[in-house]
Amino acid sequence: MAYNSQCEHNPGIGRKMKSVCNHKWYEGATAPLQLKKYTQRNNCIEKTYTLGNNSSRSNCAGDGINLFGIGRISQTTCTTFLILAALIHTANATATDIALDAKATLTHRIDSLNLLVYTFLLTLTVLTIWLFKHHRVSWLHETGLAVIYGLIVGAVIRYAGTSTPLVHLEVDPVGDTKFNQSLPPDTLWMKFPGKLTPNTTDKDPIQNKTYAYAFRGIVYDVEENEIDLKATFDPEIFFNIILPPIIFHAGYSLKKKYFFRNLGAILMFAILGTTLSSFLIGAIMYGCVKLMPEYLSSSFTFLDTLYFGALISPTDPLTILAIFHDLHVDVNLYALVFGESVLNDAVAIVLSGAIQNYGEHYSSTGGFETNAFFKSLSDFFCIFMLSLLIGASMGCFTALLTKFTRVREFPLLESALFVLMSYSTFLIAEASELTGVVAVLFCGICQAHYTYNNLSEDSRTRTKEIFELLNFLAENFIFSYIGVSMFTFPKHHFDAVFIITGFVTAAIGRAVNIYPLSWLLNLNRKPKISSNFQHMLFFAGLRGAMSFALAIRNTASEARQTMLTATSLIVIFTVVIQGGASNFLLNWLKIPVGVDEETEQLNNYRVRSSDAYLQDVDVDVEGAGGLAEAGAPGAMNVKRNEKAFLARIWGNFDTKYMKPLLTHSRPTLLETLPVCCNPLARLLTTTEQLTQDGGGLRRSDSDSDICIDDENFGASSTNGNGAAGGLNGGSGGGSGVGPGSGGMGTRRNSINRVSIRFVADDRSLFASYKNRD
Amino acid sequence: MAYNSQCEHNPGIGRKMKSVCNHKWYEGATAPLQLKKYTQRNNCIEKTYTLGNNSSRSNCAGDGINLFGIGRISQTTCTTFLILAALIHTANATATDIALDAKATLTHRIDSLNLLVYTFLLTLTVLTIWLFKHHRVSWLHETGLAVIYGLIVGAVIRYAGTSTPLVHLEVDPVGDTKFNQSLPPDTLWMKFPGKLTPNTTDKDPIQNKTYAYAFRGIVYDVEENEIDLKATFDPEIFFNIILPPIIFHAGYSLKKKYFFRNLGAILMFAILGTTLSSFLIGAIMYGCVKLMPEYLSSSFTFLDTLYFGALISPTDPLTILAIFHDLHVDVNLYALVFGESVLNDAVAIVLSGAIQNYGEHYSSTGGFETNAFFKSLSDFFCIFMLSLLIGASMGCFTALLTKFTRVREFPLLESALFVLMSYSTFLIAEASELTGVVAVLFCGICQAHYTYNNLSEDSRTRTKEIFELLNFLAENFIFSYIGVSMFTFPKHHFDAVFIITGFVTAAIGRAVNIYPLSWLLNLNRKPKISSNFQHMLFFAGLRGAMSFALAIRNTASEARQTMLTATSLIVIFTVVIQGGASNFLLNWLKIPVGVDEETEQLNNYRVRSSDAYLQDVDVDVEGAGGLAEAGAPGAMNVKRNEKAFLARIWGNFDTKYMKPLLTHSRPTLLETLPVCCNPLARLLTTTEQLTQDGGGLRRSDSDSDICIDDENFGASSTNGNGAAGGLNGGSGGGSGVGPGSGGMGTRRNSINRVSIRFVADDRSLFASYKNRD
Repeated sequence: MAYNSQCEHNPGIGRKMKSVCNHKWYEGATAPLQLKKYTQRNNCIEKTYTLGNNSSRSNCAGDGINLFGIGRISQTTCTTFLILAALIHTANATATDIALDAKATLTHRIDSLNLLVYTFLLTLTVLTIWLFKHHRVSWLHETGLAVIYGLIVGAVIRYAGTSTPLVHLEVDPVGDTKFNQSLPPDTLWMKFPGKLTPNTTDKDPIQNKTYAYAFRGIVYDVEENEIDLKATFDPEIFFNIILPPIIFHAGYSLKKKYFFRNLGAILMFAILGTTLSSFLIGAIMYGCVKLMPEYLSSSFTFLDTLYFGALISPTDPLTILAIFHDLHVDVNLYALVFGESVLNDAVAIVLSGAIQNYGEHYSSTGGFETNAFFKSLSDFFCIFMLSLLIGASMGCFTALLTKFTRVREFPLLESALFVLMSYSTFLIAEASELTGVVAVLFCGICQAHYTYNNLSEDSRTRTKEIFELLNFLAENFIFSYIGVSMFTFPKHHFDAVFIITGFVTAAIGRAVNIYPLSWLLNLNRKPKISSNFQHMLFFAGLRGAMSFALAIRNTASEARQTMLTATSLIVIFTVVIQGGASNFLLNWLKIPVGVDEETEQLNNYRVRSSDAYLQDVDVDVEGAGGLAEAGAPGAMNVKRNEKAFLARIWGNFDTKYMKPLLTHSRPTLLETLPVCCNPLARLLTTTEQLTQDGGGLRRSDSDSDICIDDENFGASSTNGNGAAGGLNGGSGGGSGVGPGSGGMGTRRNSINRVSIRFVADDRSLFASYKNRD
Repeated sequence: MAYNSQCEHNPGIGRKMKSVCNHKWYEGATAPLQLKKYTQRNNCIEKTYTLGNNSSRSNCAGDGINLFGIGRISQTTCTTFLILAALIHTANATATDIALDAKATLTHRIDSLNLLVYTFLLTLTVLTIWLFKHHRVSWLHETGLAVIYGLIVGAVIRYAGTSTPLVHLEVDPVGDTKFNQSLPPDTLWMKFPGKLTPNTTDKDPIQNKTYAYAFRGIVYDVEENEIDLKATFDPEIFFNIILPPIIFHAGYSLKKKYFFRNLGAILMFAILGTTLSSFLIGAIMYGCVKLMPEYLSSSFTFLDTLYFGALISPTDPLTILAIFHDLHVDVNLYALVFGESVLNDAVAIVLSGAIQNYGEHYSSTGGFETNAFFKSLSDFFCIFMLSLLIGASMGCFTALLTKFTRVREFPLLESALFVLMSYSTFLIAEASELTGVVAVLFCGICQAHYTYNNLSEDSRTRTKEIFELLNFLAENFIFSYIGVSMFTFPKHHFDAVFIITGFVTAAIGRAVNIYPLSWLLNLNRKPKISSNFQHMLFFAGLRGAMSFALAIRNTASEARQTMLTATSLIVIFTVVIQGGASNFLLNWLKIPVGVDEETEQLNNYRVRSSDAYLQDVDVDVEGAGGLAEAGAPGAMNVKRNEKAFLARIWGNFDTKYMKPLLTHSRPTLLETLPVCCNPLARLLTTTEQLTQDGGGLRRSDSDSDICIDDENFGASSTNGNGAAGGLNGGSGGGSGVGPGSGGMGTRRNSINRVSIRFVADDRSLFASYKNRD
C-alpha cells in the first residue's frame, strides 16, 4: 500500500503499530518518555467540523481560497494513524513538536489523497466519455457521467472510509481580560499543555508552548456537529477558481454573429426572464414553505426563498450546448440557448448578491421596504453594469496592447499577456467588490471580438486550446463534485416537500421565462420562435454549476441547507435525465440537426478569413442578392433585414470606430473619423492597417465573428441540411437578399471574401475561395 | 479609486468615514445600537502574525495550499477600514455578524489585490521582456527583470502601504478541563463576547455565539511578532503549485538524445557533485558561524548549515538555459547544464528532506550518529528511487492508455487525460510521503519519451504549449515573489557575515562540484570537457526557485531566517548579475553560439519524424560512415562510439522492449520477444503497429528524442556553424562512423529517415528528406 511506503524505509517509524478505531484518538500508546497512557475523554474529544462556509459571505475568505482545504482533516483509514502514534515513540525531540509535524504531514497526505480522488474521477470520466463517443452512445452526456461517477465515489467515501475526528476544546480568555470589540479576535493564543496537564512530575515535562489559532467561523448547533467534512472544498473555490475559466471560455467562444442577431431575444430571456422566474419561484416557494413542518418553515424567510429563486433560475450552458454542438443543431437555436445561458448566469449571480445585500444591509426587518428595495435594485444594476464595464475595458485594453506593441512576434509572451490580462480582470472586479465572474464574461467577449484579431496565429490556437482545456476540466470537476458532495457534504437537509416543490417551481419558472416572453418577442419578430423551438428552449433549461455554487456558498441555516439539497438534486436530475433525453426530444420536435454551418467548421479548424472589405461603392447588390439565402427547413430563419435593431446600431459603431481603433482592420479611423480628428486618428492607426490590402491573408479576423457586418453572409452560412460541400446551396425557403442589403445601408456591398481553412488534423491544406466580387 | 466603487452605489456604506491610523483598530466609532465606544487596549490588541510556516514541515498543511492566504490580513490602506467601520453603523442585523461579514469581504478584497499585484508584475515583466527582445537587449534576462520589478514593488508595498494589525487574544481552556493529549486540539471554540463584555445592560445585547478557531502553529517570540505579513504566500504553495509545472516542463522538454549521451557526466555532477557541494558548504558555513556573534551562532546547529548547503547547491535550470537557447549554444554544453540543473533540483529536495529527518526523527543529539546517518542515507536513496519509480510508472501508464485506447480521436479528451495523469503523479507521490517534484520530473521525461509519440498532432502541440505557458508564468511568478518578499516577508534576518560567507561558499561549492569532477570525468571521456566549458559550467551555477522554496519553507528559528535572507540575496545576485553577464562570458570564453542544430529547430516547429527503421541486415555501414560527423569547432564533440555506456544499455532495452510496448513504434514486441511469448506479444501489439510502413508519416516520433538510437544521427545533427541548410554537411573533424556502429550492435544499420518539418509560422510546408538506404 502506497500509504506505508515511507515506513518501509524508515525503520524507526511504524514499529509499534496497533489498530486504532474510529472515534478514538489513540488509546493506550505507552510512550517511553513523557507520554502517559491516554484514554479518550468523551467530553473534550468530540467530532466537530470547521465552518468553512458559515456566514452569508463565507468567513473563510480570511483563508482565501483554501485549495487543499478539503475539510480540515477528513476521511482516512486507520493505518494513517498508526504512523502518527508510532512517530511519537521514535522521537527524541519534543514529542509534541513531532506529533504536530506528523499530523501536518498526515493532513497534507490526506489533502493529496482527496485531490487524487477527484483527479481519478476526472480521468475515469475522460476515458468513459471517449468510450461513449467511440461507440456513439448519445443517451448520456459527459457532464451526466461526471455526476454519476461522483455519486458513486461519494457513496464509497461516505460508507467505506473511516473518519478522523477533529479534536476541539472550549476556551475562555485568560483571566479577566477585557476585550472591547464587536468582533471576535483574529487569532487566539493558547499555552499548551498549559493548565491541561498539571502533573509535570515527569523527568522531561512537555514544554509549555504557545499555539496560534486562526478564526474560522461561527459554530451552529454545538450539539449536532457529528459529521466530518469529507472531500469537500471551501465553496469560495468555485467562484474564484472553477467558474472564472468556464465563464471566460463561454465569452471567448461565443458565436457573436448569431448572438447579436438574436440580441433582443437573448437579453429579454436573460434579464427579464431570469428576474421574473426568480421572483415567481421565490413567491411560490414561500407559499409552499408555509405548508411545511413548523421547525423548518420557521427558518425560511421570504428572502431565503427569493434567493432560492435566483439561484435556481440560471440555466447551464454546458451540457445542452455540448449536445447541440455535437448534433450541429440549428444555429439560431444554439445562439438563443447559449446567449441566454451565459447571460443569465451573470444575471443570477448579481441578483443573488443584491438579495443578500437587501437582507443584510438594507432591510431592518427582512420584510418589504421601498427604500431597501430600491437600494438593492440599484445595487443590481450598478454592479452588473460596472462589472460589464471593467470586463469590457480590460478586453479593449488588451486589444490596444496587442495592437500597438509588436508582442505578437513572441507568441509565448503574447499568450501570457492574454492570460494575465484576463485573470487580472477577474481580480480587479473582485477587489472592487464587483462580480468577477460577470467581468470575465464580458472580458472574454471583447477578447474574442477585438484582441483575437490582433493575436498571432500561434497565440490564437494556444489561447483557444488552453481555455478549452481549462473549461473542460473545470466543468467536469464541478459536476463530479456535485455528485460527491451529495454524500460527503455534512450539511444536507432532505425535505421531501421542499425538494418536490423545488422541482415543480423550477419547471414553472422556466416555463414563465420562455413561453410568455416568446409570445411577446414573436409580436415583433419576423422569424417567429416556433412552438417547437419554445419547447426545446424550455427543455434546455438544465441547472448546473452556477446554481450549485450559489447554493453551497451559504449553508449556515437549516433553510439554506434544505435549499442546497434541493438544488443539488435538481442539478443532478436535470443534467442526467434532461441532458440524456434532449437527443430524443430534438428528434421528436423535429428540430433540424446536422445543420452544416460554416461557423461550426470554422470553430473546429484554424481559419484565416478576411472579411468583407468595405468600400463606398454601391455595386453588386444584385449579385449578392442573387445568392438567395437558404432556409433551414422549419427553423426561424433570421434574415439580414431582421437583424436585431440593437445589433445594427452597435455593428455600425463597432465597424466604424471600435474595430479600427482596437484591431488592424479596415476602414481605419482616418476614414471614419471627421477630418478634424485626423492627427489623433493617424496616431491610432498602425502602419499595418494602412499598408494591408483588402483581400490578402494579412487581414485576418476572428473566426467567431466573421462577417458580423457582412450582409451577404447568410447566403453561405445558413444552408440547409446536407449542403456541406455546396457553396451556393441556396435551396428553397429563403427570401431574396436584395431588400435586405438595401435596407442595411449602402456603404459596404462589394464583398471580396477569401476563406481558407486549414484542417488541422490531417494537415491537408485546402482552400475554398468564395470570391464574389 | 477602485476600492470605493462599491460605496458609490451603496449609499448606506461609507457614510461615516474617518481616518483610522495604523496600529489602531477603530477608535471612537459610536455605534447606534449596541456598539460602545471602543478604545484600543494595548494589552490585547497587538499585532501578531499567524505562523503559516513554523515547524519543520509547515503546520499549515492543515490548511493545505492556501492560495489566497497571502498573510492573513495584510497590507491595505486606511480607506479599506472605513468601509468596515461604516458597515457596522448601517446594519440592523446582529452587528457582530455584519462586522464579520464585512471583514471577510475585506479580506477577500485584499487577497484579490495582492494577487493583482503579482499579476500586474507579471504583465509588466512580459511587456518589458518583449521590449528587450525587440531591441535585442541581452544584458538583462527576463527572470532578472522579474526579480528587479519584484524588488521595486516590494519596496513600495513595504514603505507605502499601511498595515492591518491582527487582533489576538490569549485564552485558557474553560474551567478545569482535563485534556490528556500530547497534541494541542485541532480547533478551539470560544464564546464571544462571553465574559469579555459582562455588561449586557444594553437594550439589544450582543448575542453570545460560539466561534471556531483552527490550529495554525506555534508562536515563537511572543514579544517580537510586530511585523505583519504583507503580500506573502504560504511557502507550501511553491511545492504544490509553482514548482510542479516548472519541473514537469523541464522533464517534458528535455532533449533526451543529448541527455543520454552525457548521462554519466550529468549523473556525476547532479548526484555526487550536489552532495559533495552540500557537505562542503555545510562544513565551511559551520566553521564561519562559530565566528559570528554569540546570540546568532548559538542558534545554528551543524544540521542547519548542512541544510543550507543542500538548499544552496542546486542550480537553476531556467535563466541560463533561456540564454543558451536564445544563443543556440553548443548542444552538449546545453545538455550538461540542463540535465545537471534539472537533476540536482531533484537531488537537493530529497537531500534536504533527509537532513531534516535526520535532525527530527533519527538523531537524538543532533550530532553525528552512525545509525541515524545510515537511516537518513537510506531515506535519501529510497525516496529518490521510489519517487522516480512512481513518476516513471505513471508516465508509462499514460503511454499505455494512449496506445491502447483510441482517445486520440478526440484531442481535447486526450490532452485532458495527459494533464490529469501527470498531475495525479504528483498527488500520488505526495500522498505516499514521497517527493512529488521528483516524481513529476521523471513522469515528464517518460511522457515525452513514450506518451508523446502516441498523442495526436493536436494534443502534442497543445500539451507542449500549455506546459510552456504554465512554466513561463510559474517561473516569472516565483522570481517576482523572490523580489517582493525581500521587502515584505517579515522574518528576514540580515547578518553580513553569514551573507558574505554564503556567497563565498556557494561559489566554492560550485567550483568543487565542477572542476574536480570534470577532471575525473575527463579521465574516461574522449571528448574532454574543455576548461572553457568548465568555466562556463561553473559560471552557469545560478541559484533559483528551488533554493528559495527550500529556504522559505522553514523560517522558524533565527538560524533559518538568516539562511533565508542569505539565500534570497544569493538568488537575486546570481540571477541578475550572473544571468546578465553570461552573454559576455560566452563570448569571452569563445564558446560557440549560434550552433544551428537540427533539434533546436525541431523544438520550435512541429515535427513528424520517423526515426530509424531497424532491420536485421548489416548493410550500408560504409555508406553511413561516409557521412562523416562534423565537429563543432572547439567544442567537445561527442561521437557515437563515445555514447555513454549507461545510455547504450538503456537505449538497447528501450528500443527492443519499452518502445514497442508503450508506443506504436517498430520493431514490435512480436519481433523482439522470444517466440514463446508470442501470444502475449500479439496482445500488446496494436494493429496500427503491424500495418504501418517504415518510412511513412504514420510512424511519428517525439521531436525531443529523435534518433536516440540512430547511430548516424551525428552526421546531420552536429554540423558546425553555418551548416543550416546543408544536410550532408560533414566537413572535417569527425571520425569515421564505421567503428562506432560496429561497436554498437548489428541489428540496425539500414536507416531510412524521413523528417518533415512543418514550419508553423508561415504555414509553408517543406519537407527535407534524408533517405539513406
